[in-house]
Amino acid sequence: MPGEFALIDRIRARARSRVDVLLGIGDDAAILRVPAGHDLVVTSDTLVSGVHFPAQTAPTDIGWKALAVNLSDLAAMAATPAWCTLALTLPDADADADWVDAFLDGFLELAERHDVALVGGDTTRGPLSITVTAHGFVPEGQALRRDGAHAGDEVWVTGSIGDAAGALAQWRARGPSSAKLRHRLDRPTPRIAVGLALRGIATAGIDLSDGLAADLGHVLAASSVGARIDLGRLPTSRTLADHFEQAQRWPLQLSGGDDYELCFTAPASAAFAIEQALAACDVTGTVVGQLVAEPGLRFTTPEGEDYVPAAAGFQHFQGVH
Amino acid sequence: MPGEFALIDRIRARARSRVDVLLGIGDDAAILRVPAGHDLVVTSDTLVSGVHFPAQTAPTDIGWKALAVNLSDLAAMAATPAWCTLALTLPDADADADWVDAFLDGFLELAERHDVALVGGDTTRGPLSITVTAHGFVPEGQALRRDGAHAGDEVWVTGSIGDAAGALAQWRARGPSSAKLRHRLDRPTPRIAVGLALRGIATAGIDLSDGLAADLGHVLAASSVGARIDLGRLPTSRTLADHFEQAQRWPLQLSGGDDYELCFTAPASAAFAIEQALAACDVTGTVVGQLVAEPGLRFTTPEGEDYVPAAAGFQHFQGVH
Repeated sequence: MPGEFALIDRIRARARSRVDVLLGIGDDAAILRVPAGHDLVVTSDTLVSGVHFPAQTAPTDIGWKALAVNLSDLAAMAATPAWCTLALTLPDADADADWVDAFLDGFLELAERHDVALVGGDTTRGPLSITVTAHGFVPEGQALRRDGAHAGDEVWVTGSIGDAAGALAQWRARGPSSAKLRHRLDRPTPRIAVGLALRGIATAGIDLSDGLAADLGHVLAASSVGARIDLGRLPTSRTLADHFEQAQRWPLQLSGGDDYELCFTAPASAAFAIEQALAACDVTGTVVGQLVAEPGLRFTTPEGEDYVPAAAGFQHFQGVH
Repeated sequence: MPGEFALIDRIRARARSRVDVLLGIGDDAAILRVPAGHDLVVTSDTLVSGVHFPAQTAPTDIGWKALAVNLSDLAAMAATPAWCTLALTLPDADADADWVDAFLDGFLELAERHDVALVGGDTTRGPLSITVTAHGFVPEGQALRRDGAHAGDEVWVTGSIGDAAGALAQWRARGPSSAKLRHRLDRPTPRIAVGLALRGIATAGIDLSDGLAADLGHVLAASSVGARIDLGRLPTSRTLADHFEQAQRWPLQLSGGDDYELCFTAPASAAFAIEQALAACDVTGTVVGQLVAEPGLRFTTPEGEDYVPAAAGFQHFQGVH
């Protein structure tokens, strides 16, 4: 079992750098340079074993996901990712070195894809948990926030939603499972390019980590508006439709999290610009409803009936043991 | 038991802000502005219950310490603290709200003292653990690093060392204990003012979290020098001397951590400037030895004999259960 310093050396040897990293891993702190005319965007997210991922999840997937959920937050702010720190708490185990190598395989594969430098962090002994703090830039004043939405704006969702929750439901049921759905749960794709393309177009945005109902609810609260969502328009993957009937899918799509798609709002006049922007990113986008002045979030079935989703947004605390 | 969002609201309601926080807690990420002409300094440290503090430690002290260990890293870089994020993993317990309030009492008391804004983070369910990421500034190029020390420089230590390790030794022995020593363990003082005062004077610096032997060892490795330390000059509090004989104290001072004093190096010609700078901060400083060209860290007793400390720097992994 390597000690703390050996573990840090192991991580340091594989960490990539960037020209704006004046000093990376190996001192009391990192020294970084934010480009002139840009604001710094910072987010921290923790993954706990058995809560945010099944304990049996492959370490490579855990590494990927630990960074992905943070990059997804940067995407939702329309920020360009730059740096991250990694606080890794590992149980006392003989397999540390192998585990860390596999973890870094996934973590650094995603970091490489988005030119993110790992600049510091901490390694400690304890129950498995990972906290990543990710840093990005936006040109001053151009961040995409939750509080800029207006009544009349359309509500967009990228990609398809419900797949990750579907995988979790299959895993919990211990019955047949779909590798495609499980891939969505284990290897979420942060929508970085979409976030950047939405600068100056979208009025508000958020990433879908807790499910559409809870996450869109945050945008509505921050922007003091309401919304009506048409369940018939929820973007649904063929795989999800193959494995779950419509009535089973809605709870997954509204109250299940972990898809890490973006939900954003924009006036109808921006629809063409958005379609072009999304096409350039090779990502689909769907208008699922509209913002209204009256507070509250209402869902309507294709038959025109109201639909009330199960309590949303607390699934992390229910655990995935 | 409040849910995750209620917990975040609880924290958000008490978090202070600053003018350079354009957007704090409550969006996907914080938006921050680094002042022109300054570099950003970033550090992350995790505290795990039963590893970094006894499980019975008061939540107020845990809150203080979780921020203090991070601010200490900024001090060691000569950075001015500005912002932090807090990733709080709490066990499933009915007392969450009270615990979090007490935790925030300590955390925010220290944050207030150093004008640090809590700008974001995460709350999750799991075994008690806290990761703080702290951000500060230095004028471009003026950070205090580990790699600037030269042979001939004097080695300085602020305040006194060994007190926190003494408290831990007493706690482990379950015998008589000193409240003063325990206070040093539970409420470390990050040497922020000292770090700032050393800009342009000290050649290298580090904070003493793992003990003088391990931490000074990092400076020596980074700067490719060696050192000879005179054990008779180690700054020792009257309380530590009252509770531990000299031969017991050295292991505490060399291999015990958690004092969070600064260790720094400077040419002898800077001694007067350093004494003035420290006096202005109302902190004592002691020259404990000198850097030499030959690699290696040697300790000498007052009788002129070599002294070999126990293996240092891995005490976090031994745990304080």
